[in-house]
Amino acid sequence: MFIREMSVPECREALAHAHFGRLACAYNNQPYILPMNYAADGNYLYLYTFTTFGQKVEWMRSNPLVSFEIDDVVSRDQWSSVIIFGQYEELPDQPEFEAARNRAYAHLQQRAMWWEPAYISQAHRETPHSLTPIFFRIKIDKITGHSASAINPEDATKT
Amino acid sequence: MFIREMSVPECREALAHAHFGRLACAYNNQPYILPMNYAADGNYLYLYTFTTFGQKVEWMRSNPLVSFEIDDVVSRDQWSSVIIFGQYEELPDQPEFEAARNRAYAHLQQRAMWWEPAYISQAHRETPHSLTPIFFRIKIDKITGHSASAINPEDATKT
Repeated sequence: MFIREMSVPECREALAHAHFGRLACAYNNQPYILPMNYAADGNYLYLYTFTTFGQKVEWMRSNPLVSFEIDDVVSRDQWSSVIIFGQYEELPDQPEFEAARNRAYAHLQQRAMWWEPAYISQAHRETPHSLTPIFFRIKIDKITGHSASAINPEDATKT
Repeated sequence: MFIREMSVPECREALAHAHFGRLACAYNNQPYILPMNYAADGNYLYLYTFTTFGQKVEWMRSNPLVSFEIDDVVSRDQWSSVIIFGQYEELPDQPEFEAARNRAYAHLQQRAMWWEPAYISQAHRETPHSLTPIFFRIKIDKITGHSASAINPEDATKT
């Protein structure tokens, strides 16, 4: 297996093609991971959640430093992983955020998954306002990636 | 789509069957995600990395609070996700950790992936001792999970 660092353009291309990843936030140095759909647009990832996950939204409001990861594992020797360091930016339902919210919504409505529940477990249904949507985006500060292949990429370029 | 909370035994079963997930650590409230293979054994997840990822090992030594996540996405309305809160425990190459290291090694040698590089990119090769293995485990403090299905599980139990 041959592992190499991906260039920033390669990382961005992988981000543009995937739509599912994991967001990590931290509060009092306790990290937490949330699997989420996203849409990449320029230097931002647009995301969407419900107040069901309110604790984590509170965490990101108090500490906006986040990490986001996507991976594509085809086999044990063919995979890629892209990792972002970034910052949480909430897009509240206020006039000055309307354009950004519309942009987020336009991207995300094509990629609904986690936010289409017809049924939420009883525990969640008892939580008031559990389905209030929260739009936010991640501003990308740094992006890195690695990919693995069974063929040495240096040999491939020689032929 | 119907989302429900998974029971702890269901979460543990999912953990036992998967072997690939994402570990999140945090340093000065900056979270970081690492995709990793693992082996579940009782209340521990056994993991293995290289000093190539030394910075993150240093982070976990200084702040052992971690989160670990696995997911299984079959389709947009059939998925599950299990999230652990736990603590990093290093298994150094010392006599008192030999039994635990052997246990980790026995589990993990069947599941090699990230740690079988025949080639590491030039940048990594220039890093001294970049392939020194580090064994560690995550002690599970809390485990939660959600699963989604297209069929209402309450209807399924009625029939």
